[in-house]
Amino acid sequence: MTTEQQSNGAERLCETLIVQGVDVCFANPGTSEMHFVAALDRRPDMRCVLGLSEGVVTGAADGYGRMADKPAATLLHLGPGLANGLANLHNAKRARTPVINVVGDHATYHLKFDAPLASDIDGLARPMSDWVGRATHPDKLPSEAADAWEAAVSMPGVATLILPADIAWNKAQGGSIKPRQRAALPPVEMAKIKAAAADLRQPGRTVLLLGGRALRAGTLQRIAAICAKTGAEFMAETFNARIERGQGRVPVRKLPYYVDPALARLRGVERIILVDARPPVAFFAYPDKPSLMNEEGSRITTLVGHHEDLADAIERLADEVGAAETAPLPGGGVKEPPAFDPGPLTADTACAIVAASLPDGAIVTDESVSSGRMFFEASYNAPAHDYMQLTGGSIGIGLPLATGAAVACPDRRVVCLQADGSAMYTVQALWTQARERLDVTTVILSNRRYAILENEMANVGVQDYGANARRMLTFDDPALDWISLARGHGVEAARAQTGAELADLLRSSFRRRGPFLVEAVI
Amino acid sequence: MTTEQQSNGAERLCETLIVQGVDVCFANPGTSEMHFVAALDRRPDMRCVLGLSEGVVTGAADGYGRMADKPAATLLHLGPGLANGLANLHNAKRARTPVINVVGDHATYHLKFDAPLASDIDGLARPMSDWVGRATHPDKLPSEAADAWEAAVSMPGVATLILPADIAWNKAQGGSIKPRQRAALPPVEMAKIKAAAADLRQPGRTVLLLGGRALRAGTLQRIAAICAKTGAEFMAETFNARIERGQGRVPVRKLPYYVDPALARLRGVERIILVDARPPVAFFAYPDKPSLMNEEGSRITTLVGHHEDLADAIERLADEVGAAETAPLPGGGVKEPPAFDPGPLTADTACAIVAASLPDGAIVTDESVSSGRMFFEASYNAPAHDYMQLTGGSIGIGLPLATGAAVACPDRRVVCLQADGSAMYTVQALWTQARERLDVTTVILSNRRYAILENEMANVGVQDYGANARRMLTFDDPALDWISLARGHGVEAARAQTGAELADLLRSSFRRRGPFLVEAVI
Repeated sequence: MTTEQQSNGAERLCETLIVQGVDVCFANPGTSEMHFVAALDRRPDMRCVLGLSEGVVTGAADGYGRMADKPAATLLHLGPGLANGLANLHNAKRARTPVINVVGDHATYHLKFDAPLASDIDGLARPMSDWVGRATHPDKLPSEAADAWEAAVSMPGVATLILPADIAWNKAQGGSIKPRQRAALPPVEMAKIKAAAADLRQPGRTVLLLGGRALRAGTLQRIAAICAKTGAEFMAETFNARIERGQGRVPVRKLPYYVDPALARLRGVERIILVDARPPVAFFAYPDKPSLMNEEGSRITTLVGHHEDLADAIERLADEVGAAETAPLPGGGVKEPPAFDPGPLTADTACAIVAASLPDGAIVTDESVSSGRMFFEASYNAPAHDYMQLTGGSIGIGLPLATGAAVACPDRRVVCLQADGSAMYTVQALWTQARERLDVTTVILSNRRYAILENEMANVGVQDYGANARRMLTFDDPALDWISLARGHGVEAARAQTGAELADLLRSSFRRRGPFLVEAVI
Repeated sequence: MTTEQQSNGAERLCETLIVQGVDVCFANPGTSEMHFVAALDRRPDMRCVLGLSEGVVTGAADGYGRMADKPAATLLHLGPGLANGLANLHNAKRARTPVINVVGDHATYHLKFDAPLASDIDGLARPMSDWVGRATHPDKLPSEAADAWEAAVSMPGVATLILPADIAWNKAQGGSIKPRQRAALPPVEMAKIKAAAADLRQPGRTVLLLGGRALRAGTLQRIAAICAKTGAEFMAETFNARIERGQGRVPVRKLPYYVDPALARLRGVERIILVDARPPVAFFAYPDKPSLMNEEGSRITTLVGHHEDLADAIERLADEVGAAETAPLPGGGVKEPPAFDPGPLTADTACAIVAASLPDGAIVTDESVSSGRMFFEASYNAPAHDYMQLTGGSIGIGLPLATGAAVACPDRRVVCLQADGSAMYTVQALWTQARERLDVTTVILSNRRYAILENEMANVGVQDYGANARRMLTFDDPALDWISLARGHGVEAARAQTGAELADLLRSSFRRRGPFLVEAVI
């Protein structure tokens, strides 16, 4: 044990994180981070979780942050280690999840020699971070790490702190570290509240488009009351970090993914009011289709941005329009789970069965891509659950997201509804689930193809394609054997060919502790 | 089939690549690249190879480029797809491997809407590319793609061409595309040749430090003759893209990885002459150790850089010093393979057995990290083979590198000597080996830990560490089951516990076609 006088930069950083309440570190360290590893090792109150590839590390930090509403740290090895984690940081940034990346770098004096692992870490970090900083002196680390924390929780978003090896290993002055307080979110100006209220009272259709923290149960209920009072509509963005839904909660629809149904959904809507949401933009551009999904001539205004006090703004808007305290739950009461076909599985029946099987308080991570279309509809009246999506379109988040959510919420069952193609990018997350004995049930929707891309080929007018396209859009030769893949990572698994088998496997997995994988062959 | 008048940008790009001799495309496409996929589909003379994650794609392009001495194309999906491939592009850039990345982007007019998958692709590409360009018009694509090709082959290095979706789908003017010629490499100035010759004639020790193309068999033999004539020494850099070695070739030593042995190797050396090599820099900085490995007061000069005509420079230097046409091969003749211990495996015996078993003309990819130290020594007199290393320190290259080498050289056996920890970053490469029926034998040196980091913990003075460090440095709980992992990806596999088992499995894998994996439990 190092005495306080002998602390080094790495120890000061570790202490600062803990003081700020950051007590989980998803890690994939390398040589340049050994002093930080040694510092973490001296703090058993920091939970260190190893990922065997960095996409697992950053995706798990995203899942953790979405559920814990506070950041985890990540530990990444230089530019390439960060690079491997960027795709899921992109998702975290789009989800506005608080994350603090600690990225090791060469010692400051070693950089000029351009050693083989040297690269422009700042340049790599910037596109997928909301804040990038560099530790400059061991004595300054408590303040620099608190800056990273503040950026992560206040944006909220991805903060990346680059830690040169000598700043980590050099001695630092001791002294206790005082926690920095979280600044209050600024309130929305009254003029905006009044303008929104005026819009809501106007004749013609107005939609409140909801994202971010607008989709928590309490806020949703106030928004539903506002709409009940004013006749306005509300819907969620297409991809959302976390929706609190299910029995006892206000059901919310999402704007469709594909351009034509999205245009149809917003046809005739005169005003769109953004509530922690972004304008309705097509995920991709297509020849001769618009980029914006709102009708021409309609108006988009922002009520509240992601860095403003949303709950307060909604409360004031409710007061302004004279909304009741609570809104009735549309559809009302608890329904029986829908009947499902016990016969051969399809994507739709698999989704219906998962929806009908959800245990109370489940956390659902949905990276089902094209196969999971039915799940959201089928599960609106399932027991109360949290529902998390791929927010940035960078596939390979599902398994890590489930992993991080399970670390954040050890008493809840995580159900990972996962397409096979996207699962493969970060399949190593299964090992972390096994290592940490996490209660994650993964359902692989196994169709052995990038079905969404097959749709897109049809969209670009190619119906009968040849060997090259087939070789880029399918992976049925050889078929991935998900039972072996899971077992290889230390996770028990079984295959379901029928609805009855899937329902049985889900039930039994929910009764036991630890991870389990079901390959649903569709 | 599209007629020439109706070509779009994607088809012009595809045609240009083929005209320049680029006929392999390692791909992991997405929606924004569908027009390019459709264009590739119309050209069966382009071989499209799918990777299930982008680290596989870029690492395979590196392996292909090292063996084929010409670039493959990659196809990557927007910023996150590129990001996933950056770590292995870092290795390719350090290896000076020619690679042409085609990275899709949103349609130009869609970018301003900041759709969920939008990111700063140029910013992401720059740190790991030698050249970054953006396609600006379908009519200009033949010229812009030829610029990318020229950059890739002349640097040589990593060229990244960003392809907005509308530039791909918009119509282009037709007309035949003339191949651009490869510019001759500039010759080294005569003054440098004469200065090197003068250095070689001086008393005291001079070392020719060799990298890049200096390590091809013909050039190595001329360098050996120069040294035989002048009494100079030669050695290779620590990490090399490709060394032609084995029976009938000049053996070359490498500068050691660790600081102390590297310092010892260069102690007393007065002059270091760089031949397509970089100054001898420590891989990492350590407290109280130097960054440069050459003795203080010694002199480092560059004879030939990577963009100059190396073979010509060596020929002229040989003339200048009056070296003989050929040098005798040190150690001479063919030796019997060394005897090995048939008992329980260790890292060293596993390496000795692989070395003793190599078939003639093998390609060895070595990402054995700490477990493979003995292999290089043990294999200097193996049958003639190519030897490829991790050049940029970004682990997770071995399996993809082997994959790409096997695509480039379908008549040769690729032997992938692979540490278990680093294998996990890009384990999905096994599936591509199965899909393409590649003759790759992977030997996993399975020690269930990041042994190199355990060494480094000792280096930072931590001998007895606790739970957190153990959880970040080992992955024995649960142990990865490599037989299941391989089978899950469609690759046959078996486990070797003894030297006799390993030798048997290697022999039988070399007799059959297709991939095979041996887990060598050490």
